[in-house]
Order: sequence, then C-alpha cells, then structure tokens
Amino acid sequence: MYNTAFRVLEVLEASDGPVSGEQISGSMGISRSAVWKHIKELKGMGYEIEASQKEGYRLIKKSNRLLPYEVQKRLRTNFIGRKMRYYESTPSTNAVGRQLAGEGEAADLHGMVIVAEEQTGGTGRLGRSWVSPAGGVWITIVLKPGIPIDHVFMVTMAGSVAVARAIRKEFDLGALIKWPNDIYIGDRKVGGLLLELFAEADQIHYCLLGIGVDVNISPGELLGVKRAVTSISAEMGHDVDRAAFLARLLREFESRYLLIESGEYEALTREWKSFSSTLGNRVTINTMKATFEGEAIDIDEFGALIIRKDNGKIERVIAGDCIER
Amino acid sequence: MYNTAFRVLEVLEASDGPVSGEQISGSMGISRSAVWKHIKELKGMGYEIEASQKEGYRLIKKSNRLLPYEVQKRLRTNFIGRKMRYYESTPSTNAVGRQLAGEGEAADLHGMVIVAEEQTGGTGRLGRSWVSPAGGVWITIVLKPGIPIDHVFMVTMAGSVAVARAIRKEFDLGALIKWPNDIYIGDRKVGGLLLELFAEADQIHYCLLGIGVDVNISPGELLGVKRAVTSISAEMGHDVDRAAFLARLLREFESRYLLIESGEYEALTREWKSFSSTLGNRVTINTMKATFEGEAIDIDEFGALIIRKDNGKIERVIAGDCIER
Repeated sequence: MYNTAFRVLEVLEASDGPVSGEQISGSMGISRSAVWKHIKELKGMGYEIEASQKEGYRLIKKSNRLLPYEVQKRLRTNFIGRKMRYYESTPSTNAVGRQLAGEGEAADLHGMVIVAEEQTGGTGRLGRSWVSPAGGVWITIVLKPGIPIDHVFMVTMAGSVAVARAIRKEFDLGALIKWPNDIYIGDRKVGGLLLELFAEADQIHYCLLGIGVDVNISPGELLGVKRAVTSISAEMGHDVDRAAFLARLLREFESRYLLIESGEYEALTREWKSFSSTLGNRVTINTMKATFEGEAIDIDEFGALIIRKDNGKIERVIAGDCIER
Repeated sequence: MYNTAFRVLEVLEASDGPVSGEQISGSMGISRSAVWKHIKELKGMGYEIEASQKEGYRLIKKSNRLLPYEVQKRLRTNFIGRKMRYYESTPSTNAVGRQLAGEGEAADLHGMVIVAEEQTGGTGRLGRSWVSPAGGVWITIVLKPGIPIDHVFMVTMAGSVAVARAIRKEFDLGALIKWPNDIYIGDRKVGGLLLELFAEADQIHYCLLGIGVDVNISPGELLGVKRAVTSISAEMGHDVDRAAFLARLLREFESRYLLIESGEYEALTREWKSFSSTLGNRVTINTMKATFEGEAIDIDEFGALIIRKDNGKIERVIAGDCIER
C-alpha cells in the first residue's frame, strides 16, 4: 500500500516540473483514481503536493516526518536500518523491540531500526523517564551480537561514538560523550543511549540499543527536564533534516559495530576516549553501593570507568551515575 | 478452589485412621457434597484415597506429582519458592518465566519458582534441546538480583552448588559440578542449569535460573540423549521423594543466593571449587572463536575458567564448552 504511494512520490521527485495524473497513471500502470488516492496518502504523511487541473501534480516540500522512505533513500549501510518500523507515536521504541524479539527469531531482526515520531513513555537508564516529544530522533536498533556478555557495553560505546560523530559531521557541533551513556554539547545534554539485553549467561539472544537525540525541539518543550538540556535546532538556530541525520548516524554506527564483532575493542575505545568529556575530570560517582570522588583517568575494554581517588587508590566502576565537576 | 481441597487433605493427613465425610464437613464448614468434590479433585491430582461408606475417607498414598502443596509443606526458606506456579506440561519453565516477567513487575516475581511435571520443549545452553520427561525436577527460579551484570554467572554457580549439595544430603550420592553448568554423578550427567537474564547495561531487570535434574527417570527414557546420563532413581535403585528433594534444593539455593547479594563471592566460589569435577583436569575448550587444550587450574570471581595451556600461557574463558579428559 505505502509502497505504491512512494513509487508515485519517486515520479514526482524525479521531475523538475509538474507531472500529469495521466502520465503517472500510464508510467506506473495504475488507474488515475489510484494515483489520486496515493497523492492523498502522501499528503496525509506530510508531503506538500500542489495539484492543478491543467498541469498535474508537483512536489512542493517533502514531509518533515522521519519516514523510513526518507531515511533509507539516504542510507549507506549494509544491514543497519535496511529493515525499519515506523510509529507516529508509541510508548517506547525499546518496548516495541522487546515485543518483536519475543515473538520472532532475533536473528531475523538483526539490524532492524524502530523509529517513533514521539514516545509517550520513553525511559532512560534505571527506569527514569525520558521526555521524547515530536521533533526528536527516538530510535531502537535491534542487534544479535556474537560477543561475550561482559563486553556488551561496547555496543553502547559504538552508539555513543556514532551519535557524537553524526552530530559533528552533519552540523559541525562539538558533541562529547559523558560516561556512561549521555551526549553533550558544551555543558548541556542533547542525547542519550539505553542498552537492554536478553541473554543466556554466555550468549546474547538480542540487544536493544535505544538512542534519543533532541533534534528539532524548542528548549521550551524540554522544560520538564531537570538538568540543562539543548537541541540541535537550538544550537543551529533553525530546524535540520532529521532523515539525513539519522541516515548518517546509522552509517557511523554500523562501522563501529563491525569493530566490536571483529574484536577490535581497542580501536573503538580509543575513539570513544577522543570524544570523552569525562576523562581527565574530577567526578563524583554514585553506584548501587557507594559514593566517592576522584579523577576519571581511563576507560577499560569492558567500558568500565577507572577512577583515581584522592588517596591514590584506583577504583573500577562498571555501573553508576557520574557527576562531572 | 485447590486451596480448599488441600485443607481437606490436611485433615486426612492429620488423622491416623479414616475420617468420615460428616466430620470433615463439620470441621471445615462445607457441605458433604463439597467434601466429595474435593476428594475427587485430590484423587485427580494423584492422591490415593480410600472411601468406605461406613468409615469414611482415608489417605493411602500421597501424590507423586511435584505439587506446590507438597513442596511448600517441606520448605524452609524465606522467599525462594514461597510463590510457586505448577504446570503438568509446558514447553519450557523458562519460557513461562519470560512471559510472566514481560507482563508484570519483576520485583513481585522475585523468588517465584515455576515447576513442570514435564517440558515439551525444554532447552539447554545455546538453544540445545533438553529432554525433560515426567519424573524429573524441571524448574525455573525467577530472581531480581541487585548485582552488576558481569557477576551474573554467580547465580548459576549458586544454583550448581545447591543442586550438588541437595543430591549429596538427600541421597548421599557424590554429585560434582562440571563447568560451566552441568551436574554429574561419576562420569554421567544427572542435571544442568540454564541462566537467562534481561538487563540494562548496568542493571538486571530479572534472571531466570532454569534447573533440570533427572530424578525418577529410567535410563531408557533418556535414550535420545547423546552423552552418558544417569538419574537419581537409577543410582539409588528406587524412586525417591521429589518434593523433599526440591524443598532441600531451594533451601540450599537461598542461602547461596544470599551470599551473592551480600557480595561474598569468594565464599561461594570456594564452595563451588570443592564440588568441581573440572579443576585440576586436562580439558578441551570450545569457545565461539577458538578451540584449545590445557589444564583447568582455577575459576575467578566472575565464573570464568582459568586454563594453563601447554605453552604455559594462561587463558581466561568466560563462555564455552568444556570437554574433560
């Protein structure tokens, strides 16, 4: 159904001027009333299409939704995002991923990207809520990585590097990674990642890498959020092309993910370090069991943060909150 | 419904001789036809109850099913097995656990034990099938451990120690643990464990510890299994009380699990080592990426096996198959 509509769209995109209903109908082998129906469908998805009795249909403006068609048109990956699921609104893209993985073969879902225009029940780490209004990029990448479970944080690291690189390349903004899973521009948070996994003790059945980036969102819409936040549009002074950004993000992610699969943890860790806002800083760490201060001096191949405390003692933190001073 | 039937059963159990329907009806405040209905129900569950017009009802033999009532009557735990789910037949108790955890709050399920008389689609590690006919103990313990994800193998270790100890204490058989998750008597496998978990990168949402022990099973029923297997009844020469065994197993598990929650990994690892058939042996290891031989010399606090290869090099194996020579 959607496929034919997008074939009509392709005809409009390929033409500089207007295209008559007769031309579309003839070239595609569908009736003129079918053409009209698909044009209506495209308008419903946010495409601005001018229709004149005399000249025919003309594409004025593409949809500003994050439609799979728009993303995949720009996508240069082998498997990440080749399958997509799109939701105008859903509680949480990770929840969709859990359901899909529960129903089917995780191997068939490997690389699938779930996109939502808005999430009504988005969550961050440890069940914290994650405000996800329309205009952001809220996605989940479904993966079945063949890596030991104790290296699973590498997947988050690959995602963090991909988000930071995509922001830098598309918008020339100095995005940084804050351990364990936040993306900052300056001292304001612009995105975050959430990794969930289902595993046997020694084999990962599937991973869900949730990624959220405040893209075309006015700061006012994020007022409920406690910490200092920003968005790409706020930094740039105008809205940006989310589809191009997401296509770039997925491409950056795929190449880093392949580093993990081939065991090149060091290359990925090195890149992560080069974007880190955390290393070299004085930090306060809150873990499930303790709170302490020190200097963040390194990250190891399991994604653990290495802290030198004031008494010189070295602590390895695999899980916790990190407040940078 | 079942509750009232078991209250009738308690009356029969408390009496040395037969109890008249009138007595039961009077003491419980239910009608005589209700008594008759509950007696029928109990018979349906495998209890042998003699009924005589003159004397009344007399319990001849308890059910040999692994009914929660029979297990909980013997149970001396604080939270493990205080909630149980019982299935005469189900594809897999771990699958039941996944479904329950997907529907509800994992915290409410903490300690729940799912029991099946038989599994029609039981699985072992890495999706291998696990033959689970009637007569075995096939259970899943649902847990929400507050430990870092890289220590999750400790839960399997607690389960392995519990199974080995329960077999030793109840039957005086020399059960041993074969890394990573099998239980042996001599050179024959008698049980195994399978840990599944759903987690964020730094927080475990829930774990499912599947445990299978060949208890009252004739070796003929396990003929489809490739490796050398045995059962408790084959070793003992007679069937044993599965409910008493399971109650013991759960009690042994609870005390080891509490060691994990309090961070006493070393105490648990020490006990695991004392039951290990693997340590000190020459082994062949098959991991996802490589095969190699060496001597199994230790296990670390993450459950990884430490191998000294012939060239003296030390390898740490967190996941793999282990063939003992």
